[in-house]
Amino acid sequence: MDTQSRREFISSTGKLTIMSGLGLGAASLEEETAQLRNKFIHHVFFWLKNPDSQEDKQKLIAGLQRLTKAKTIESAHIGVPAATNREVIERSYQVSWLLVFKNDADQEVYQSDPIHLKFIEECSMLWEKVVVYDSVQAK
Amino acid sequence: MDTQSRREFISSTGKLTIMSGLGLGAASLEEETAQLRNKFIHHVFFWLKNPDSQEDKQKLIAGLQRLTKAKTIESAHIGVPAATNREVIERSYQVSWLLVFKNDADQEVYQSDPIHLKFIEECSMLWEKVVVYDSVQAK
Repeated sequence: MDTQSRREFISSTGKLTIMSGLGLGAASLEEETAQLRNKFIHHVFFWLKNPDSQEDKQKLIAGLQRLTKAKTIESAHIGVPAATNREVIERSYQVSWLLVFKNDADQEVYQSDPIHLKFIEECSMLWEKVVVYDSVQAK
Repeated sequence: MDTQSRREFISSTGKLTIMSGLGLGAASLEEETAQLRNKFIHHVFFWLKNPDSQEDKQKLIAGLQRLTKAKTIESAHIGVPAATNREVIERSYQVSWLLVFKNDADQEVYQSDPIHLKFIEECSMLWEKVVVYDSVQAK
């Protein structure tokens, strides 16, 4: 499809389309929900030793920002508890760390990545408890 | 940039590039890790009443597959515990459900989406416990 044809196609769909590396605008619902298909999901929740210390929280967030450079990470999200507050919602943690890996092997490489080891060395004194959920595609 | 110029650019980067709606191949590390930036992350873990029942597990997974049609979901991952097994890893749940929303408002719409209410009606008898982690971008 040449550029002109593609423009016409995009126009005919009536959807905003950004032809970038991310290009989410063009994806159908099926394509969008397929983004995480077969990925290895690694989700970590941190409880700080000083849960009310904004300084410690910012130190951990800064450490996680540096950690996003680990080479096998596909996508990362550094989070804090949302405002949602129902009985089933766990919101006692201070910081969350969601990683998407292509597969289990990439997650294993990440565990021993020097950038990860440096993060643990620099930041592990900040947390009291960490809980990890690793999940793979349900079949 | 016309098609020919783009081909040359792609070729010069030496990376496999798929110019599709997802187009992850072309994204730099920064673009890739930026995919989840500012998203609302909703992660649910299910413990079944009959944790060893493959039938109940498959019923829940099928229900979640239908639930991916809820209109405000950007991306979804239906998971089971990975093989990883360290002290900090919680792997006693049977099924996980990770959703990416554009923002808090979209997550609120999802909560009362008829497709979601139907899922709860059809599947809630299957689980004994559910734990939810909602997180938003750390600032």
